[in-house]
Amino acid sequence: MSYISNAVEYALHCLLYLVNPNDRPGGVSTRDLADLQGVSTEYLAKIFTKLHQAGLVVGTEGAGGGFALARAPEKISVLDVIVAIDGKKPLFDCKEVRLRCALFGSTAPRWASRGVCSIHAVMLEAEARMRTVLATHTLASITARVAAKAPASFSTDISAWLAGRPVTRHASRGSGVRRQK
Amino acid sequence: MSYISNAVEYALHCLLYLVNPNDRPGGVSTRDLADLQGVSTEYLAKIFTKLHQAGLVVGTEGAGGGFALARAPEKISVLDVIVAIDGKKPLFDCKEVRLRCALFGSTAPRWASRGVCSIHAVMLEAEARMRTVLATHTLASITARVAAKAPASFSTDISAWLAGRPVTRHASRGSGVRRQK
Repeated sequence: MSYISNAVEYALHCLLYLVNPNDRPGGVSTRDLADLQGVSTEYLAKIFTKLHQAGLVVGTEGAGGGFALARAPEKISVLDVIVAIDGKKPLFDCKEVRLRCALFGSTAPRWASRGVCSIHAVMLEAEARMRTVLATHTLASITARVAAKAPASFSTDISAWLAGRPVTRHASRGSGVRRQK
Repeated sequence: MSYISNAVEYALHCLLYLVNPNDRPGGVSTRDLADLQGVSTEYLAKIFTKLHQAGLVVGTEGAGGGFALARAPEKISVLDVIVAIDGKKPLFDCKEVRLRCALFGSTAPRWASRGVCSIHAVMLEAEARMRTVLATHTLASITARVAAKAPASFSTDISAWLAGRPVTRHASRGSGVRRQK
């Protein structure tokens, strides 16, 4: 599995479909999102449980209900979605090899354990730089990129497709689902 | 397993011990490096096979032989070592979910497949930024950081430890081992 999972890819694609709330004021169901992307509803339901737990989406129950973004698309970064789905994974898990030098015997001297290992420091700097990029891009900025190359009709086609879907009863997953006001 | 493996951590620690070639002109054996770090010789031998295949170390056979850096420590980056050990792993493996929209039917329109997916583009930018950091730091820069906090005696202690090791016959691993001139 890659460092950033394919569940993140599906989560982002789903969230992009929620950027325009006019399509479905009550939210879009995981079933509609699944059919729209040719993937199983169960798979997306698991993804939405995580997105909901992370506070990125809100769910509305009942007929015509579904999920909607919990905040403005410019306030949901790619990093937010990655952390919601994959958790906070470090790039590198330092085993403190620096302390095991045979010359140190059973206890490493203070200078050797002081601060972060110089190798680990490089990995942390790389990770920070990567995270900065992922935190800079948002659902809003990606939507703008897609809109720049998609024909204007695409957005209305999606709206029409969603409007034409049968209205089913939606039961939000997980406990403590907030109802939309 | 983390994105950057622990074998990379051991590889970097080993290579740092090879930065000062005066310690052992014929190179340092994996056995000595293993004993110095409290890890098995077999484990380090596998790591050195990869480092050698990537052209980062050269091996000398025979009594007192071992491995030495193939080029100056400022010419061996952390990224070089990561690629040698873990291979060129992308951060994200795009499955082109963008092409599977139900509205497209069996064939996605050209605008949808043009260029890189807007989500993938974010991941590629993050990966490039991460790689830039990893390519900037080298064995020389890490050695300088360690030297700044270690007492001056540490380097001479390592040299003395290596000089005191029994000289054993070293057979370089893998085919095509280049002999040092």
